[in-house]
Amino acid sequence: MSKIKGYAMLKIGQPGWIEKERPVCGPTDALCKPLAIAICTSDVHTLWEGAIGERHNLVLGHECCAVVDEVGSLVKDFKPGDKVLVPAITPDWNSLEAQAGYSMHSGGMLAGWKFSNIKDGVFSEVFHVNDADGNLAHLPANISPEDACMLSDMVPTGFHGAELADIQFGDIVLVIGIGPVGLMSVAGANLRGASRILAVGTRPKCVEAAKGYGASDFISYKNGSIEEQVLELTDGKGVDKVIIAGGNVDTFASAVKALKPGGKIGNVNYLGSGLNISIPRVEWGVGMGHKQINGGLMPGGRLRMEKLGALVSSGRLDVSPLSSHVFNGWENVEKALFLMRDKPADLIKPVVKVA
Amino acid sequence: MSKIKGYAMLKIGQPGWIEKERPVCGPTDALCKPLAIAICTSDVHTLWEGAIGERHNLVLGHECCAVVDEVGSLVKDFKPGDKVLVPAITPDWNSLEAQAGYSMHSGGMLAGWKFSNIKDGVFSEVFHVNDADGNLAHLPANISPEDACMLSDMVPTGFHGAELADIQFGDIVLVIGIGPVGLMSVAGANLRGASRILAVGTRPKCVEAAKGYGASDFISYKNGSIEEQVLELTDGKGVDKVIIAGGNVDTFASAVKALKPGGKIGNVNYLGSGLNISIPRVEWGVGMGHKQINGGLMPGGRLRMEKLGALVSSGRLDVSPLSSHVFNGWENVEKALFLMRDKPADLIKPVVKVA
Amino acid sequence: MSKIKGYAMLKIGQPGWIEKERPVCGPTDALCKPLAIAICTSDVHTLWEGAIGERHNLVLGHECCAVVDEVGSLVKDFKPGDKVLVPAITPDWNSLEAQAGYSMHSGGMLAGWKFSNIKDGVFSEVFHVNDADGNLAHLPANISPEDACMLSDMVPTGFHGAELADIQFGDIVLVIGIGPVGLMSVAGANLRGASRILAVGTRPKCVEAAKGYGASDFISYKNGSIEEQVLELTDGKGVDKVIIAGGNVDTFASAVKALKPGGKIGNVNYLGSGLNISIPRVEWGVGMGHKQINGGLMPGGRLRMEKLGALVSSGRLDVSPLSSHVFNGWENVEKALFLMRDKPADLIKPVVKVA
Amino acid sequence: MSKIKGYAMLKIGQPGWIEKERPVCGPTDALCKPLAIAICTSDVHTLWEGAIGERHNLVLGHECCAVVDEVGSLVKDFKPGDKVLVPAITPDWNSLEAQAGYSMHSGGMLAGWKFSNIKDGVFSEVFHVNDADGNLAHLPANISPEDACMLSDMVPTGFHGAELADIQFGDIVLVIGIGPVGLMSVAGANLRGASRILAVGTRPKCVEAAKGYGASDFISYKNGSIEEQVLELTDGKGVDKVIIAGGNVDTFASAVKALKPGGKIGNVNYLGSGLNISIPRVEWGVGMGHKQINGGLMPGGRLRMEKLGALVSSGRLDVSPLSSHVFNGWENVEKALFLMRDKPADLIKPVVKVA
Repeated sequence: MSKIKGYAMLKIGQPGWIEKERPVCGPTDALCKPLAIAICTSDVHTLWEGAIGERHNLVLGHECCAVVDEVGSLVKDFKPGDKVLVPAITPDWNSLEAQAGYSMHSGGMLAGWKFSNIKDGVFSEVFHVNDADGNLAHLPANISPEDACMLSDMVPTGFHGAELADIQFGDIVLVIGIGPVGLMSVAGANLRGASRILAVGTRPKCVEAAKGYGASDFISYKNGSIEEQVLELTDGKGVDKVIIAGGNVDTFASAVKALKPGGKIGNVNYLGSGLNISIPRVEWGVGMGHKQINGGLMPGGRLRMEKLGALVSSGRLDVSPLSSHVFNGWENVEKALFLMRDKPADLIKPVVKVA
Repeated sequence: MSKIKGYAMLKIGQPGWIEKERPVCGPTDALCKPLAIAICTSDVHTLWEGAIGERHNLVLGHECCAVVDEVGSLVKDFKPGDKVLVPAITPDWNSLEAQAGYSMHSGGMLAGWKFSNIKDGVFSEVFHVNDADGNLAHLPANISPEDACMLSDMVPTGFHGAELADIQFGDIVLVIGIGPVGLMSVAGANLRGASRILAVGTRPKCVEAAKGYGASDFISYKNGSIEEQVLELTDGKGVDKVIIAGGNVDTFASAVKALKPGGKIGNVNYLGSGLNISIPRVEWGVGMGHKQINGGLMPGGRLRMEKLGALVSSGRLDVSPLSSHVFNGWENVEKALFLMRDKPADLIKPVVKVA
Repeated sequence: MSKIKGYAMLKIGQPGWIEKERPVCGPTDALCKPLAIAICTSDVHTLWEGAIGERHNLVLGHECCAVVDEVGSLVKDFKPGDKVLVPAITPDWNSLEAQAGYSMHSGGMLAGWKFSNIKDGVFSEVFHVNDADGNLAHLPANISPEDACMLSDMVPTGFHGAELADIQFGDIVLVIGIGPVGLMSVAGANLRGASRILAVGTRPKCVEAAKGYGASDFISYKNGSIEEQVLELTDGKGVDKVIIAGGNVDTFASAVKALKPGGKIGNVNYLGSGLNISIPRVEWGVGMGHKQINGGLMPGGRLRMEKLGALVSSGRLDVSPLSSHVFNGWENVEKALFLMRDKPADLIKPVVKVA
Repeated sequence: MSKIKGYAMLKIGQPGWIEKERPVCGPTDALCKPLAIAICTSDVHTLWEGAIGERHNLVLGHECCAVVDEVGSLVKDFKPGDKVLVPAITPDWNSLEAQAGYSMHSGGMLAGWKFSNIKDGVFSEVFHVNDADGNLAHLPANISPEDACMLSDMVPTGFHGAELADIQFGDIVLVIGIGPVGLMSVAGANLRGASRILAVGTRPKCVEAAKGYGASDFISYKNGSIEEQVLELTDGKGVDKVIIAGGNVDTFASAVKALKPGGKIGNVNYLGSGLNISIPRVEWGVGMGHKQINGGLMPGGRLRMEKLGALVSSGRLDVSPLSSHVFNGWENVEKALFLMRDKPADLIKPVVKVA
């Protein structure tokens, strides 16, 4: 059996190239080779902060597009040579959780997230995809490899925030955080008919991108509490919906305080630390204010990739502003990863084209 | 203008009878005389704990059935002499909040709750009802005054818990608290098709009633944490849905821990104290576990009274076990109120027939 | 009591100016004077086709913006001189139907439609609005009178089609009809995240406008059946959702045949004739294909006006292409009405500024 | 390879025993042996009416419970000897349709229905189940084989009618048809909180069973139109929801006429003949009455079996009245099938215990 190279977390805090056996391709599986990969903040959390605990020699990465290299005997819709979109979340579709509508939790909470969590990730010459027919999607011809990488996680996660917050025509929406996920939440809120989008963030490059995606007002942490600024901007009424795409466990208090009764919060931010999320009792209506709190991992799988891919392919969603730094060649994966860790002011997402 | 008597909160901690002017009946209003009134735990919170702040000479009470005494010129469907169901929540139906589907927050969070909060309550010879056509309902002939009182708050609040938790066929449901509201949440979960209802509570009279309403398993605070008992009873899987009808701000942690990913929590418990509700970060899926948290005041108004009243009138819901202590005559209101404060072991709800 | 003039349907087929008593302003009502009015196809149906039956001396019109002239004693949020958006549908908000979420049917099916149906319409020097606080909305300063008229009916009706069809991110949507309502359905589908919008219609001016609103493909009745063209354009798969904004009772058969299982149809077209709508049994999955059929009158009222008005006010929705023909002065109402009847090729909507 | 016997449709109108090769068990499949089988009206339609077209030597049957005989190498949760519930619908869970929430249409409209449609059915010594982990469920120990057969189709189909009609607390519900599916729709409506259930049907045995399941009023086709009787029983208001579990393409007209605006229709009746379903234009609100029309095949798969099985296992749903005629031994399958065709007055469902 042949060997493959991958860029891995050797242990917490220590990345590096390793060699592994080429994965076995089961009857419903596919093996793929990346065309381009992108770095996610989660990679930083996983590697340097130990966010998901210790791991040894785990190949990193869950954002890429790829070309199919091998398929199992039961795979019907893909063959070697096909270019594909690859979702960060690859559920077991026959699980009880998926049957209940929560495929991302197939086999247990968050367990639909397999790459660089339960198994090796995609920063590898070859990587393994479970249930190829259910989890891959054909790459539309007019989507570039860099843009395709944004469909693995940034678009579906950001847009899921808009779904969880249940944006309706004319809603005033607060989006907390305008990193790449937050930018896609702004785009998602806009694409579901918000009339006004208040965005929390200050980095000029992100502010510029947020404007392009539909943000109408900007709030800075530096100018006082989020809720006070929101209430001032809305004549004391608050917003209809909140999408949380940044911050930490304390951010929810601001969200609840800024929200009207009958409003909804959609969190898509990975909460890396803190014991508890605190919901302020009084502003939550002493338990009865109808301020719904949602938080959920992005849906993955093939249909999702096809539908979101169609938004990019048709030109309705331009994800190109996200790829602020594009590199060429596997040798630049490390540089890209360190860039994500260091987050210079002009960074949104680093992408590496590897084919 | 004639004088009327009412049993009031003179100030925090001090109840007593007072005399007031008969209220003015506006063009869309009605004035009503109680047939029977019931005491709510909220009356105890309001009076002795100052839960809604200081009030002077505010007539208490928001649970009753009544006979119409006077109607405004624009009222079409009610006339003096009509016996009526009276909801605890009487919204302004043309408000923006009501138009958005949240009538209980008409005019501001929780502001659909007017009796003994924004204006005098129903423990009065005559009380005022805003928007009579929109908020009263004709009392079905076969519902007794005691049972009718349970439709003001206990049934709609308990059942709203089942709605907020979105019970589906075959769900395993945890109901925390089996006071009168919790009992109605058990009944509501049962009436929406739960296959198994785990109830948290120990008072024998309530346990007995809960069994009658469909509870299948009982959990006691005294035997360890709720979540551990739930996980043990469900082979470690947890429940599909949780209704919180008792406890305090700390109860939500148990609810989250006992819940499956993709599950929903419906809170209808008034949270009287505590700065924050704490949601455990890890068990909430580091923000992404799809464990939806809802909390809401009961919907009020006429349609709700008619539909829930029809469940009692048709015999599908027997609320008679709730009225554990029934008195006759206005002179017993005080005794009933003190009974609610002291909560003897055999108490569920005290009711006073006053006509 | 003073007299006012209005442009009325004297009887089926015969329009003309009449004089009436100024309406009485009840305690919750307002009297308003139009700033601009717009003609709706429904006016043509009502007058020349007798679509709602015979009427005598009924003032026509349900699309306008206005200035408040008088308010009742209980009106809180509006005063004489206020400029307002006026919805075509003005519900009784405390009705059982409104409490159930269907305010447009308050008092009976379609009975929330009062103007030029149950009472005199808005083509009048002064017109009557029931429940001013619940049904009027302040006119945003940056919306022109012509654009404001589009918010009475065209925008809310067209957008309701997108709501009834439940458009989701990435959906492929078929919009049948690209008159002014259909154009707003295209805009609504686009604003809810459709990835591709197939529009049925041929008039060049409308095709041009539809492109601007997001239509990506065009289908002509002249090139064969709608369903065949849809299936050809979608590799035989059909569309995710259908909005019907034109055609007749036979149009539903095409919609069902063009739709995937699990899809939804949203009809907002007034069906003026025909005994039955025919749903093809086999293509509807012999009763079990999960092709949901919805049809509904636009929601009216204040909140709706405020939220849709905010989309225009913020620049997210440009309704100016709809007003293809703008006149000045009451004397041009008749000309505008006849224009709507005759529908020249370059007509979308005629508007008359009257103040 | 060994031979197995099955009771098959040799061609339209001609049943008989045949011998076939034992099916091949793929890596995710199971082969099962029936413990008991039940006859469905669909078997009659398929065999004698050619409802799904001509078939040759197709083994009949889609209702049974069974014991596992063999499992594929990738099956994790089942092993030979396990007793199982078997749903009539066995979806491909990774299909796009299932990912969209419509697993019953996996691979095409209705294509989740495989038994006795796309492949051999369950009236066979051994039958094949695709995706065993996703489609079988362990048989609870306290459910008898006869009762278990009711979970294949009757319970999930009848209950799906209550889901499609979206029954809410206090609804007045019309159930058209009280054969075995209709009886389960009555039970389902009752178990979702209907306050009153009007049932259409006359056979005394079914009327008796319907009363037990919660029907409160009965309507006979013989006493005039359904809608007139409904309007008379509801003071001219009509019902909140309609479940169609019998009748034919003309039944929808009655359903629409009997329904309030804002109401919903849920059809689970297989419509075997007729070109079109006719929706009356005027009573459907000239296209705008918000009378939603749904029709859908039952959801299948493992989770559904587990959840509905739990309702039977916990004693909340007693399906024993459905099995009106119980036989022993494979030799009685033909007798049971002919009984279903001839429908004597005292028949609800024939069941045959075969192990």
